Amino acid sequence: MTDFEIPESHPRYESLLTRHRIEEGVEKGITSQQGLIAQGRGEAYDYLLGEETIPSADEAARVAASHLLLADHPVLSVNGNVAALVPGEIVTLAEATGAAIEVNLFNRTKKRMEAIAEHLHEHGARDVKGLAADGRIPGLDHERAKVDADGIYEADVVVVPLEDGDRAEALSEMGKTEIVIDLNPLSRSAQTASVPIVDNIIRAVPNITEHARELQDVSEAERNAMIEAFDPDGALASAESQIRDGSLE
Amino acid sequence: MTDFEIPESHPRYESLLTRHRIEEGVEKGITSQQGLIAQGRGEAYDYLLGEETIPSADEAARVAASHLLLADHPVLSVNGNVAALVPGEIVTLAEATGAAIEVNLFNRTKKRMEAIAEHLHEHGARDVKGLAADGRIPGLDHERAKVDADGIYEADVVVVPLEDGDRAEALSEMGKTEIVIDLNPLSRSAQTASVPIVDNIIRAVPNITEHARELQDVSEAERNAMIEAFDPDGALASAESQIRDGSLE
Repeated sequence: MTDFEIPESHPRYESLLTRHRIEEGVEKGITSQQGLIAQGRGEAYDYLLGEETIPSADEAARVAASHLLLADHPVLSVNGNVAALVPGEIVTLAEATGAAIEVNLFNRTKKRMEAIAEHLHEHGARDVKGLAADGRIPGLDHERAKVDADGIYEADVVVVPLEDGDRAEALSEMGKTEIVIDLNPLSRSAQTASVPIVDNIIRAVPNITEHARELQDVSEAERNAMIEAFDPDGALASAESQIRDGSLE
Repeated sequence: MTDFEIPESHPRYESLLTRHRIEEGVEKGITSQQGLIAQGRGEAYDYLLGEETIPSADEAARVAASHLLLADHPVLSVNGNVAALVPGEIVTLAEATGAAIEVNLFNRTKKRMEAIAEHLHEHGARDVKGLAADGRIPGLDHERAKVDADGIYEADVVVVPLEDGDRAEALSEMGKTEIVIDLNPLSRSAQTASVPIVDNIIRAVPNITEHARELQDVSEAERNAMIEAFDPDGALASAESQIRDGSLE
């Protein structure tokens, strides 16, 4: 971000960075009206969560990294808010795990698809999928169902940050391992996920990357054991309890 | 709202109406980017609150009505989200209590001030204050401090729905009786208020009006007794406990 000059030590650094990126997203036609409202909902949950990565979310991020490293065909699904908030971080995660990047919008327009792909290219992405739209997710309306045949349609592991509940359920019914990043532990997306990460994507995406780098040299058996041991309901319950009893004191 | 045809019995009526009005607000240049994000924060808190008027909020609305009826110079402060969400309801409340309406924006531009005044006129408002800006709230930056000398500056009782914390504190320091409508019981605005109403403004504003109509024939002594008996900290604690233990079950 060329014109964002606040030092990381600033107490409101993360919040100011988020604000700056969202504004840039609006200017570029990436962030939608619904995206701004969703951003506000996220802010409220993050406030209640204490604006930090709680231990269960960190564990979920580590398990997500294991899944991505073990996958044959991992894909990171990117919508308007994800592209606005963590464009460079998504590219770095894709590089660290060999995952593909696919743009996938709830309110799909050609113009927004292209603006987002362009924004990702500016942040270093080489191949950005989603514009072919030659595959369909079963059980969804025509527009919502569109994906790339060699992208999300084929994927065995998908990361869907800030995903709509219907699509999260439909992807899960296709038998995919679904990694969801969502600040509301009670959302259908979080409830549906194989790996729910209840955390701000600004923190969660770089955290998955860091875990992926650490896990590069770990054996496949060890990664599998980590995945086996993970309890998604436990992770959701822990986030819910943090929201309930944590920062509201 | 001419083009909103969903029956009130629809289970998501309130949420769809809110969405419709916010979209209209954006089209008319009334709702800002920050307003959309604030709307999202409100949605999250309302979800946790159970999307209903809890008893302590209903009591606070009744006390607010008493204050407005007893006031010499009551003013309803209207920002972009208030104008978008409850334009007709604000006009009705002003009529029921003899309060003035004043537009007051955190991000003040002449264009938005005028668009909001126009929108309120379309919903039946006669006099809309805020454009004179010939008074100043002490202790605030120049732009944030602007109010009408014969409006908020002079007011003894002000209703400030969805108000920024700094301005809520500055108004309170001027000795005004401040009625705040805010879904976050921990916000500085809510904490500063003489009467905090932790409720969605879509429900709270008509509810104050209803109480004002019921209290028309109640004696001044009785209204004063109601005001004396009100405990703002108790109301905030009750809302916090509802958010903590209510809908999150």
